[in-house]
Amino acid sequence: MIKKLAIVGGTHGNEFTGIYLLKKWQQSPELVARDSFSTEMLFANPAAHQQNKRYVEHDLNRCFSVADLADDSLGSIEQRRAKEINAQLGPKGDPRVDFIIDLHTTTSNMGPTLLITKKGKFYNQLAAYIKLHMPDAMISCDEDHKSNEQHHFLSTVALDSVMVEVGPVGQSVLRHDVFEQSEQMTQLILDFVELHNRDQVPQLPQTVEAYRYLDSIKLPLTSDGERAGMVHRDVQNQDFKLIKPGQPIFVTFSGEEVCYQGDKPVYGSFINEAAYYDNNLAMSFLEKITLSTV
Amino acid sequence: MIKKLAIVGGTHGNEFTGIYLLKKWQQSPELVARDSFSTEMLFANPAAHQQNKRYVEHDLNRCFSVADLADDSLGSIEQRRAKEINAQLGPKGDPRVDFIIDLHTTTSNMGPTLLITKKGKFYNQLAAYIKLHMPDAMISCDEDHKSNEQHHFLSTVALDSVMVEVGPVGQSVLRHDVFEQSEQMTQLILDFVELHNRDQVPQLPQTVEAYRYLDSIKLPLTSDGERAGMVHRDVQNQDFKLIKPGQPIFVTFSGEEVCYQGDKPVYGSFINEAAYYDNNLAMSFLEKITLSTV
Repeated sequence: MIKKLAIVGGTHGNEFTGIYLLKKWQQSPELVARDSFSTEMLFANPAAHQQNKRYVEHDLNRCFSVADLADDSLGSIEQRRAKEINAQLGPKGDPRVDFIIDLHTTTSNMGPTLLITKKGKFYNQLAAYIKLHMPDAMISCDEDHKSNEQHHFLSTVALDSVMVEVGPVGQSVLRHDVFEQSEQMTQLILDFVELHNRDQVPQLPQTVEAYRYLDSIKLPLTSDGERAGMVHRDVQNQDFKLIKPGQPIFVTFSGEEVCYQGDKPVYGSFINEAAYYDNNLAMSFLEKITLSTV
Repeated sequence: MIKKLAIVGGTHGNEFTGIYLLKKWQQSPELVARDSFSTEMLFANPAAHQQNKRYVEHDLNRCFSVADLADDSLGSIEQRRAKEINAQLGPKGDPRVDFIIDLHTTTSNMGPTLLITKKGKFYNQLAAYIKLHMPDAMISCDEDHKSNEQHHFLSTVALDSVMVEVGPVGQSVLRHDVFEQSEQMTQLILDFVELHNRDQVPQLPQTVEAYRYLDSIKLPLTSDGERAGMVHRDVQNQDFKLIKPGQPIFVTFSGEEVCYQGDKPVYGSFINEAAYYDNNLAMSFLEKITLSTV
C-alpha cells in the first residue's frame, strides 16, 4: 500500500520541464491528488536552477547511495542537499515517503520514457498500464546492477520509485510536446498507484516490451584524453533503435568513421546527451527484454 | 580586396561546433588557407567555454558597439575580452582584419543559416553562391536597424563580416550534421572571397531568396514577469516557415493557446532558442525578401 507519494522536479537545475510542472501543480494541487494516498512535491535543486546549471558542484542524482548519505565528510552543495532531502523524504532504508516520481528530461531523442530501477510485478504492471494508455512510451530498466542501497539516484530514497525521462529537449528549454508527455506519464503513474492501492488494477497485456541497461559507451578520445570525434549521424536521434555490429557509431573530426565492434546487436539510449559530455559518455547500450505482468 | 580574414569560434562558450572546427583547422591550417588572402583563427571566449556557459558575465556578442568599446568603465570579463579582441582584430572603424567569419550554433531548427548584417552586392552574391552550392542554406539579413558602428556583434569589428549560424544543436553538444554544415558553409565563404578577390565570381542567379529581421517576440509572462507559457508545438522547429495571423504561437502552462495577433503573415527564426530565455525571447519575426546579385 502506497500511502505517501512525492513528485520531485528540478533534481537537475537546467531540466526546466519538471520545475514548471511542479509550479503548475503547486498552484492546482487537485491535479495530482488521489483518494488513496497523499501527494507532496519537492523542488530538489533550486541552487543549481538559480545558476541555470545541471548542478553546482556534484550531480545531485548521484548523491543518494546509503554510504554517501552517511558520510559527513561529503559536504558539497549537492552532498548537503542530498542529506536534507533524505531527512525530508527518507531516511533511505526506512523512509517516510512510500513512492517517489522524479521528473527528468534528456537532450536525446528518447521520447517519453519510464526509467525503472527495481524488479517486481508492480513495476511490470505499471509499465504495461502506461504503454496501454501511451503507446509511444518506452520502458527502460536498470534493475540488475545495484541494490537499492547502492543506487545513487534521488528517487531510491523511497522503497519504490520511478523516473520520468522525456526528450528531446535542450537544457534550459521548455518544449510543448515534452511538457505534455511528462505531464501525461506522471498522471498515468498516479492513476496506476491509485488502482493498485484499491486492488483495482485492470486486465493488462500479459507481457510488455522493455529495454535493459547493459553498458555506457565513451566518445572516441585522443591518447591525452581529448575528444577526437562525435556521434555519427546514422545514430543521432536513433534512441531505442537497433545498432548492428560493424555499423558506424562515431565520426572523428577529420571525418573517419568508427564502427561498433561488438558481436551482437544492441539498442542505444541517451544518445549524445549533453549532460554526459562531462564524462565523455556518448550513449548507453541496451538489450531488449520482455516483462511479464502475471 | 580582402587581404586578411579571421575565423572566430567560441564567441559563445557553450556553442561547441565552432570551437571544435577551430581545433581541427589549427591542426590543419591548409584547409582554410587560400592564395589571395591570409586566414587567422581566434577562440573568442575560452573563459566561458571553461565554465561550459554561453558567457561568464555578459554576452560577448553584445559588447562590440563603438561606444561600448570606448567605455573604460565597462569592465566585466566579456567587456574586457571585447577590448582585447578589438585590439587584436580591429580597431573597429580602422581594422587590421578585412573580413570576419564568426561561427555560431542555435538550438532552433534553423538549418545552415548565413547571417548578414550589412547591405551590398558583395553580400548578395555571396548569398547566391552559397545557395547554389548548398541549397538547404538559409539567408537571414539584419542590415536595416543599425549602422555598423552601433552593431554590437563581434564580427562587426571588421568592415565586412558574416555569421554562420547552424542548428538545431543543443548547448554544449556536437552534432555530426551541424558540424559538417558549419564546415561546408565556411569553406564556401572562403571560396567565394577567393573568387571575389581574383575577380572570378562566376555567373550567379540574378536573385536569391532571403529573410529580413523585423522584431523579437517575448514569451507570455505573468503580471509579475514570470514565464506563463511556452512556444506552441505547431511553431516549434518551424523556423523560416509561415506564421499566419490568428495561428497559435504559444500555449500557457494551463493549456490555453495564445495566437499571433498581427495582421500580416511573418516567418519565424530562433524559435525557442535556449540562450534567449534570459530575456524571455521566444522567437524572431522575419519578412521574406529578394536580394539582387546584379
